[in-house]
Amino acid sequence: MTDAVLAALEFSGIFVFAMTGALVGARRDFDIIGLLALAMLTGLGGGAIRDVLLGVAPPVNVASWERLLTATLAAALVFWQHDRVSRREPVIMVLDAVGLATFCVTGTIAALQHDIAPATGALLGVITAIGGGVVRDVLSGRTPVVFSGELYAIPAVVGATLTVALQEFEPLGVLYVFPALLCLGLRLVSMRRGWSAPGARRRA
Amino acid sequence: MTDAVLAALEFSGIFVFAMTGALVGARRDFDIIGLLALAMLTGLGGGAIRDVLLGVAPPVNVASWERLLTATLAAALVFWQHDRVSRREPVIMVLDAVGLATFCVTGTIAALQHDIAPATGALLGVITAIGGGVVRDVLSGRTPVVFSGELYAIPAVVGATLTVALQEFEPLGVLYVFPALLCLGLRLVSMRRGWSAPGARRRA
Amino acid sequence: MTDAVLAALEFSGIFVFAMTGALVGARRDFDIIGLLALAMLTGLGGGAIRDVLLGVAPPVNVASWERLLTATLAAALVFWQHDRVSRREPVIMVLDAVGLATFCVTGTIAALQHDIAPATGALLGVITAIGGGVVRDVLSGRTPVVFSGELYAIPAVVGATLTVALQEFEPLGVLYVFPALLCLGLRLVSMRRGWSAPGARRRA
Repeated sequence: MTDAVLAALEFSGIFVFAMTGALVGARRDFDIIGLLALAMLTGLGGGAIRDVLLGVAPPVNVASWERLLTATLAAALVFWQHDRVSRREPVIMVLDAVGLATFCVTGTIAALQHDIAPATGALLGVITAIGGGVVRDVLSGRTPVVFSGELYAIPAVVGATLTVALQEFEPLGVLYVFPALLCLGLRLVSMRRGWSAPGARRRA
Repeated sequence: MTDAVLAALEFSGIFVFAMTGALVGARRDFDIIGLLALAMLTGLGGGAIRDVLLGVAPPVNVASWERLLTATLAAALVFWQHDRVSRREPVIMVLDAVGLATFCVTGTIAALQHDIAPATGALLGVITAIGGGVVRDVLSGRTPVVFSGELYAIPAVVGATLTVALQEFEPLGVLYVFPALLCLGLRLVSMRRGWSAPGARRRA
Repeated sequence: MTDAVLAALEFSGIFVFAMTGALVGARRDFDIIGLLALAMLTGLGGGAIRDVLLGVAPPVNVASWERLLTATLAAALVFWQHDRVSRREPVIMVLDAVGLATFCVTGTIAALQHDIAPATGALLGVITAIGGGVVRDVLSGRTPVVFSGELYAIPAVVGATLTVALQEFEPLGVLYVFPALLCLGLRLVSMRRGWSAPGARRRA
């Protein structure tokens, strides 16, 4: 049961992240290849970078044709139904927050299967959650929105760190719902209230 | 015989791709290091990304001094003979199409030596063919031309997919000439006729 | 003794490189996440790319929490003391040259522990020294300064090449001070005199 729920969350996360990638591509007037590339990189890139850093080859997100197909379907949906999809952007942003919450937890857990330091595990969880978006932004010619915009990465940092802490105590799998919900809640509240991350105090 | 032909095609492909990288660098007024870096990344980057994703370390394109030297010579040629080289850009574009056709087939075959899904094999073949150009464009500060310009990636997708299909039937090596010629022909015709890949139907 | 000196140089190099990353982020008005990401990528990115290419997983710079902490502290310093830090930019540039000299030698030595060609060893040493800066620039939306600006990469190329040459003769460890000093001296002199690398002869 839990495994099925996890898989459903993973695949929805890939689909939604891939949609955000394809939408950015459409806004830049990229062609179908650009949409597909951005969909794959955004939906699968974060997990792929994590696996490359862990020495998992080929990365799960590249090896699994089901995941490649999921990202491709998201690109196809944006390609053929761009207007319908982009009208639903508020819904997509909520689903994107669900993806963020899923990936920061599952990415951290996947990393901690390997013999690594806790700090490395949390870092790889955050990379899983935000890495695809960073690649999407660089490839579409803008500086990564997670570096200067809304409160997006910090919920993932919180979720990944709490996941590492739970893992230290070897808890039951179901407990990992908490870091995911914490990340999700923090992201949704900050979307609602327009919170942003603090910048450097340049004129302190 | 076939091996010698393949090696000749591979090295010419690296040389021509590296030249296109160095030419982009020269157009941006990069110095000799910028030209060399772009030449290496464009000529060797696609294959290197494929090998990293497959767990081949170091990547063949990084391990082989002959390949490093080939990219270096291309950079040197552009550095010292920029005007002569850039006057021949139409010829370079045809040779670039030969490189594209070579790499989408050889990249797919190299990937399928590993135990991977057919879709993954085709994807890695396409990455081999277009990955270097994407890195070149990102590092020289423009959005990748394969995402919004001419019909460039689709011939590689066609060639890689047909290569995977042939491999399923374990055919003789010489048969792989067909996907390469198909990719080459498609690319040359689309250069001639100015075909471009379809974009998203934004106002459908 | 030598090991302690080497470790001290490595960690200072990471700290200073990370500071330059965070400073670029602050100049672009990135938030704390952007500063942290640029600090990590600049301080740890070059060595991480080298390790990925060598098949060392996870890369030492990602696996070691001490190194992650070092980059984090550099980001924190720039975040809370931006004005004090940026006023000392001339000092930082000198320390950055020390980091460059350290990394081109230690990166080459680390690479040559593996069974690779001399040219590959030198290339990986140069990537260790300048790779983080290239990633920093691409992620902050500018073309890499090492491609078109000052004489920065060439001292690293000289240091890495001399390190490879020394390794061929299996000399004592202390001899590696020479390539490092040569790289450092060349960089400092070129900073002083405003030397830049030669560009392509576009109108030859």
